[in-house]
Amino acid sequence: MSWIVREEGFDPQRITNHGSKFMTGNGYMGYRGTLEEFSKEQLTAVTLAGVYDQIGTKWREPVNAPNGLRTRLFADGAELSVLNSAVEKHVQELDIARGVHARETVYLTEDGARVTFRSERFVSMDQLHLIANRFTIHSDKDVRLTLETGIDGGVWDINGPHLKEAAYTSYEGTLTAAASTQELGIRVAVAECLAGPQEGQEEIAATEDGIIHRILLTLQAGSTYEWVKYVSVYTSLDDAEDALEAAVSSSRSALNTGYDALLQSHEEVWEQHWALSDVEIEGDDEAQHALRFSIYQLLIIAPAASEKVSIPARGLSGQVYKGAVFWDTEMFMLPFFLYTQPEIARNIMMYRKHTLDGARRKAAEYGYNGAYYAWESQDSGDDACTLFNITDVFTGRPMRTYFRDKQIHISADVAHGIWEYYKLTGDTGFLIDGGAEVIWECARFFYAYAGYYPLKRRYELLDVTGPDEYHERVHNNAFTNYMARHTLRVAVQMMDELEQQAPELYAKLAGEREGTPGLQEIREIAEQLYVPQPDAQTGVIEQFDRYFQLEDPSLQELKARILQPNEYLGGGNGIATTTQIIKQADVVLLMHLFKDEFAPEIKKANWEFYEPRTEHGSSLSPCVYALVASDIGMPDWAYPYFKRTATIDLTGDSKQYVGDLYIGGTHPAANGGAWMAAVLGFGGLQADEREVRLNPALPSEWSALGFKIRVRGQAFDIRITREDVRITSPAGNASEQPFRVEGRETLVRPGQSVTVSLKGLAPAGGSH
Amino acid sequence: MSWIVREEGFDPQRITNHGSKFMTGNGYMGYRGTLEEFSKEQLTAVTLAGVYDQIGTKWREPVNAPNGLRTRLFADGAELSVLNSAVEKHVQELDIARGVHARETVYLTEDGARVTFRSERFVSMDQLHLIANRFTIHSDKDVRLTLETGIDGGVWDINGPHLKEAAYTSYEGTLTAAASTQELGIRVAVAECLAGPQEGQEEIAATEDGIIHRILLTLQAGSTYEWVKYVSVYTSLDDAEDALEAAVSSSRSALNTGYDALLQSHEEVWEQHWALSDVEIEGDDEAQHALRFSIYQLLIIAPAASEKVSIPARGLSGQVYKGAVFWDTEMFMLPFFLYTQPEIARNIMMYRKHTLDGARRKAAEYGYNGAYYAWESQDSGDDACTLFNITDVFTGRPMRTYFRDKQIHISADVAHGIWEYYKLTGDTGFLIDGGAEVIWECARFFYAYAGYYPLKRRYELLDVTGPDEYHERVHNNAFTNYMARHTLRVAVQMMDELEQQAPELYAKLAGEREGTPGLQEIREIAEQLYVPQPDAQTGVIEQFDRYFQLEDPSLQELKARILQPNEYLGGGNGIATTTQIIKQADVVLLMHLFKDEFAPEIKKANWEFYEPRTEHGSSLSPCVYALVASDIGMPDWAYPYFKRTATIDLTGDSKQYVGDLYIGGTHPAANGGAWMAAVLGFGGLQADEREVRLNPALPSEWSALGFKIRVRGQAFDIRITREDVRITSPAGNASEQPFRVEGRETLVRPGQSVTVSLKGLAPAGGSH
Repeated sequence: MSWIVREEGFDPQRITNHGSKFMTGNGYMGYRGTLEEFSKEQLTAVTLAGVYDQIGTKWREPVNAPNGLRTRLFADGAELSVLNSAVEKHVQELDIARGVHARETVYLTEDGARVTFRSERFVSMDQLHLIANRFTIHSDKDVRLTLETGIDGGVWDINGPHLKEAAYTSYEGTLTAAASTQELGIRVAVAECLAGPQEGQEEIAATEDGIIHRILLTLQAGSTYEWVKYVSVYTSLDDAEDALEAAVSSSRSALNTGYDALLQSHEEVWEQHWALSDVEIEGDDEAQHALRFSIYQLLIIAPAASEKVSIPARGLSGQVYKGAVFWDTEMFMLPFFLYTQPEIARNIMMYRKHTLDGARRKAAEYGYNGAYYAWESQDSGDDACTLFNITDVFTGRPMRTYFRDKQIHISADVAHGIWEYYKLTGDTGFLIDGGAEVIWECARFFYAYAGYYPLKRRYELLDVTGPDEYHERVHNNAFTNYMARHTLRVAVQMMDELEQQAPELYAKLAGEREGTPGLQEIREIAEQLYVPQPDAQTGVIEQFDRYFQLEDPSLQELKARILQPNEYLGGGNGIATTTQIIKQADVVLLMHLFKDEFAPEIKKANWEFYEPRTEHGSSLSPCVYALVASDIGMPDWAYPYFKRTATIDLTGDSKQYVGDLYIGGTHPAANGGAWMAAVLGFGGLQADEREVRLNPALPSEWSALGFKIRVRGQAFDIRITREDVRITSPAGNASEQPFRVEGRETLVRPGQSVTVSLKGLAPAGGSH
Repeated sequence: MSWIVREEGFDPQRITNHGSKFMTGNGYMGYRGTLEEFSKEQLTAVTLAGVYDQIGTKWREPVNAPNGLRTRLFADGAELSVLNSAVEKHVQELDIARGVHARETVYLTEDGARVTFRSERFVSMDQLHLIANRFTIHSDKDVRLTLETGIDGGVWDINGPHLKEAAYTSYEGTLTAAASTQELGIRVAVAECLAGPQEGQEEIAATEDGIIHRILLTLQAGSTYEWVKYVSVYTSLDDAEDALEAAVSSSRSALNTGYDALLQSHEEVWEQHWALSDVEIEGDDEAQHALRFSIYQLLIIAPAASEKVSIPARGLSGQVYKGAVFWDTEMFMLPFFLYTQPEIARNIMMYRKHTLDGARRKAAEYGYNGAYYAWESQDSGDDACTLFNITDVFTGRPMRTYFRDKQIHISADVAHGIWEYYKLTGDTGFLIDGGAEVIWECARFFYAYAGYYPLKRRYELLDVTGPDEYHERVHNNAFTNYMARHTLRVAVQMMDELEQQAPELYAKLAGEREGTPGLQEIREIAEQLYVPQPDAQTGVIEQFDRYFQLEDPSLQELKARILQPNEYLGGGNGIATTTQIIKQADVVLLMHLFKDEFAPEIKKANWEFYEPRTEHGSSLSPCVYALVASDIGMPDWAYPYFKRTATIDLTGDSKQYVGDLYIGGTHPAANGGAWMAAVLGFGGLQADEREVRLNPALPSEWSALGFKIRVRGQAFDIRITREDVRITSPAGNASEQPFRVEGRETLVRPGQSVTVSLKGLAPAGGSH
C-alpha cells in the first residue's frame, strides 16, 4: 500500500492536481499524470529538462515536447473519454516503487456495452529518451472500435507557442514530429512506434496538430486487445547527430526489445534507487507513504545523467516558475542527494559551474565583481527572473518585486551547497573542476556588495531580500549576513587547502588583479562582516535591522485585513510588509543551517518567537520548523510540519495563485524538505569531513526509523528505535568511520553493526 | 492695483481658497482670509506659530486659537450672511502694501432694505498679539439690527479638538476665552474689547462655543454705525506671567490707543518691510502683482521676533502638513530673507539650533551619530512625520512612505542654510551661538550614514529618498550626495576657521570621543564621498543608481495610466516609481545650488533631459526650472515656471489632494521661489563672502527689474534694464563692496551709483 498512489473515480476539478500527483519522469523529461485521451487543455505535458524558449518579452520558460502518448477511443463513432462519457469505474494509479503509471476505466457505451480501457506507462529510467505505454481494450459486447493513437502536437504552453515549423510525418510506420524552438532554434523530435493486433484496418492520418494511426476494429465480446507504444524524444541539445533520426532509431530499437524487457531494465534502475534512498518508518503508515512519495518525486527529476541541468522549483511538472532553478535546489533538495546519491549531488552543483558566466554577467550588470547567481536560473545562468512578477489584484497592474535584484543570498546558497558536497565527499576533483572557482567568485561578489562602516568597525549588507520575501529591501538580514559570512569563511578555508593541494588553481584564483580583492581582503571581511546576535534578554535574533519596530499583529489579525483572496501580502503595499508577519522561515532556517553555532535555548527562543509570525506562504517553510523543533528535542512540535511538507503533492493543498499568477505543480523543495525533516530532523543526522552525528528525536507515532546514507564514499545503514541506534557498515566499505550518537563517539568498521543505546531521548508525548 | 488683491461676488466653492489668498498675519499668528460671519466650517483659523498639540496617535499639529473676530448680523431676526442671504454686492480685498483685509457686502433684507456691511482688519505687525477690526453698518431703510460679536471657540481642527477646559468669561466688558492644549497643557487665551455706538441695548451672552456681545439697535435709514474690536492672543509659551491677564491688558491698552493709531504703527512696520524687500518689475503688471503678493505672503509669516520658530510648509494658513517645518524653509524661503532681512534669516536658522537635540534623538533612533533633522519639524525638533502619510485610494489602506526615514538630505539642507547665512553676513557670532555645532553634527551624521566600498575606493550613501519623492529608497541620489559632500566640506572649512577664531569651540567640537569621527575622518570622507558625474556623452547626471534603467514613458503616457484622479504616483506601487517620471526638480536643483560647479552645457543638458520627465507634483518644482533656465541664458524658458510659481496662491491652482489627504493652504516655498526666480534667476544675483555677482537675463516681457539686497551688513539698490545694471550703495554704508556684473568686476563705494552696461545679455525672444 505504501508504494501505491491511487485515486478512484473521476473528478474534473482534480485534473490539474493529478497531473502533478501522478507524475512520471526520469530527469531527462517529466510526463504529467494525465490520461491518454487528454490534450493541452488538461495540461498534458512532456517537459524537457534544460530546454528553454522565449517569445518576445514574454517569460522565458521550458519547452514541452509533442505528446507521443495521445490515444482516443471511439465506440460506434462516439468518443470514450472520462471527460464526456458514461464511466462505470475509473482508477488511476502510480506505483512509486517502480515508476509505473496505470489507469483503468470502464465505459458504458450508448449501446450498453462495457468497454474496459487499461493502460500503463513508464518514462524509462534506463533509456532516458524513452516512454513506453501498453494498453488493452476489452468489451463485453461486440463494438465497432475506432482507435486513434499517435503524436499530439497541441502542446501546453503558458507563454508559447514555443515550437514552430512543426512537421508530422510517417516513415515505414514510425510516426514522427519535429519542430524548432522560436528563440534558439533547438530541434525537438518525437518518434512513435506502435505494436498491436494484426486485425482491423489501419491508416495513418494527419490531424490539425499531429499525426495518428487510425485503427478500425470490431472488438469481439470478451476478447482483450493489446497495443504497445514506444515513444522517443530527442532534441538537438542531445548528444546525437540528428534529433529526429535518433528518436526514430530509439523507438524502433525499443520496439525490437519489447515492452517487458524494457520494463524490466527500468525496474532494475528503480530498485537501485530505492536501495540507496529508501527510508523506513515504523508505526506510521501515512507518514511512510508520504515520505516515499516525496522521495519518488525527487528521483523522477534528478539529473542523474547530466551536469548541465539542475532541478527547477516545480520539477519537470510544467512551465510554472519558468522552469527555473532557485535556491530551493541547494537548500532543500541537495541534502537528500548528498546523503544518498552524491553523484547526482555533484551534477546538481556542477550545473552552477556551467552557469557561472551567467552569474558573472548578472554581477557585472549591477556593478559588482564576482558571481551573483540568478534568482531564477535556466540554461545559461542569466537571470530569468523579471522585475515584475505579480499582478496587483486591486489595479490589474504589474507589481515591482525585488526577487531578482536583491536576493543576494542565492550566491551564498550556491557556495554553501558546494561546500556541503565537498565536506561529505572529500571530492577535491570537484573543487578543481569548478567548485572552487564558484565559491571564490561568490566570495568576491559579497566583498563588492558589502559596505564598511568605520564607526561600527564592520561591514554590512544593505538593501537585500532574505528568504522572507514579504519584507523586501531590508538591511542586514540575519540569514543573508550569516550565509555571506559563511561563504567568505569557506572561501578562506578552501584557499588554505588549495594552497597545499592545488597550488596552480590557488595561484590562479588568488592572483592580484586590478579592482578585485585578494585573499587578504577576503580574510578580513570574513571576520568583519556583521552578523546580528541573539538579543541578550530574549535570545531572539532580529530578522533584519528594525524588524522589531514593525507592527506586531497576530497572523489571524493580519488575515482579517485581506480584501481579496489572492492579494499578495508582500510587494509595494502588501499588508504583511509593515508588520512582523513573515512569509516563511528566515531566522529559523539559520538555526538549522548553523545548528552548531547556536545554543538550544537560542534555537528554542527563535522558534517560539517566529513560528506564530510565520504565514508559511511558501512550501519551503514548514519543513524548516520541523527540522529545528526536532533539533531542540521537540519532535512532536515538528511532526505536523513534517506531515504538511510530506503530503503537499498528495493532497494538492498548497497556494495555487499569487495575484493572478498560477503557481501550481509539484514541490520538489518540499519533497526534499520531507526527507530532511525525517532523516536530518527526527533522525538527527549531521555529517561532515570528520564524523557522522546522530541525535535522534522520534515523534510519538514512530517506533522506528531506518535509512541509508553514503558519506565520503562509504555506505551505511542506520536504524533508530526509541531505545537505540544501530549503525551497519557493509563489508564492502573500505575503512572505519567515526560516528557520534548523542555525543558519544563510536567507530564503526566495515562489516560491523554497532548498536548504541539511547538514554537521553526525550520521552514521547507532549504536543504544541 | 498691483498692491490690491480683490475679488468681487461670492462663490461658496472658493471659501477655502480665499482663506489662503486673503491671509493676514505677523509671524506670531496667521488669520485666514475668511469673513466675519464664518466659523470653523469655513476653516476660519487663528493659527499660532510654534504651538502644537497631539491627541492620542492622531497627527500632531498646530493649535488654532479661538476666533475673536466673529461677528454676525441679523436684520429683523434673519441672519445677514454671504452664506445664506440675498447679496447685492460683495467685495473682498487685501491691501498687501499694508496688510489690511477688507470686505464690503450689501445685503437685501426680506423687507427690501439694503444693509451695507463694511469691515477691515489687520493682524498688527507692530503689536504681535493684536488683531484689530473696524466695521460699519449702514442701511437705506430703518432696520431692527441684532449684532452678535465676540469670541468663537468653535475652532477648526483637523486632528482635534486640541483645546480643553475652555472658559468664556467677561470682565468689565472685556470678553475672554481661555483653554489648555491636551498634550502639553499650554494655556491659550483670547481677549476682546469692543468699542461702538452708545445707542441700543447690549447684553453679554454665552453661546454654545463662546461668548458674545449681543447688541439690539434700530439702524436709522441713511446712518452709518461703527464698531471696533481689539482682540489679543497670548499663550503660556509667551513671555508673560499669565496669558489671560496679558491678553486682557493688551486689548484694553489697544482700546485706549485707538484703531487709527494702531493702524498707523502697523503700517509703519509694513513700510519698513517693503523698503527692504520690494522688487519692481517694469513692463509686466501681472508679474509685478504676483511677485509682490508672494513677498507679502512671506512677510506675514516671517519669525521676526522669535528664534524658536521657523516657517511651516503651509505658513500659518492652518494645520495642513502638521504645521511642520520642512526643507522648504532653508531651500526656498531662506534666500529671500537672507538677501533682504538677514535678522529674520538668523532666527530661521537659530530654530535649527534650538531643535538640535530633537535631530540628535532622531539620529540615535536610527542608530547614527550626529544630527538627523526631522523631515517634519515642530517645536521640539522630534520628527512629526509619520510612517504612513497617504491613503491608498484603491484599498483605503494607509500607505507606507519613506519621507521620515530616508530623506537624509534634510540635514545637509540645514547645514547649507547655515553656511549661506554665514557667507552672506560674516556673522561669526552665529556660528558660536550654535550654527557651528549644527553643521558639525550634520557632518557627523553623514559620516555615520555612509558606507565605504573598498573596490571603488569611495563612500556611498545607500537607501535614501531625494527631493523626487516618487522614487523612494534609492542609492546615491545625486542631490543627496552632493549636498552631503557640501556639508562635509563646509564642516572642514568651518573647523579650519574656528581653529583660529574660536579655538575653544573648535576644541570642543573636534575633541576625540569614542565612536565618533574626528576632524581627520571628516576631512577624508569629504574627499572620498561619491558624487555622480555628468555622463561623458550626454552631460546628464543620473538622478540615482540605475535611474537610467527605468522605463521612459512620456509624462502624457504615464498620466494615461492613471485609474483614479487622486491616486498617489509614488509609494509602494505608484505608477511613476518604476519610470523616469519624477515628481519635482532633483538633479536640476543641484544645478542651481552648485551653479559654479557645472558648465553651462551640463546645466542645459540636464534641464532638457529632466524637464519633460518632471510632473511638477510639488509646488517647489517650477521655480527651480525657472532658476536654471535663467542661469543658462534662457529666461523665456524660465518665464512660465516663474509665473506658475508666483501665482500659485492667487489662482489656487495647486494639488489639493493626495490620496484622501487635503494638502491645500498657502505655499510659502513657492512664494520664496517666485522671489528667487525673479531676483536670483532673472536678476542673476549671487553673493558670497567675497563679492556680489549679477548675471541678469530678463524675460522678453520685462523692461526693467529693481530690487534691494543686504550683503555683509550693507544695503544696495540694484536696477537692471535691458541695457545696463545700476548699483547704488547708499551713503550710510560703511565700505566699498566688490560687484561682478557679467564677469566684470566693479567696486561700489558708499554714496556711489555705478552703471555697468550689458553687452552680453541674451536677446529677447525664443520660447521653449
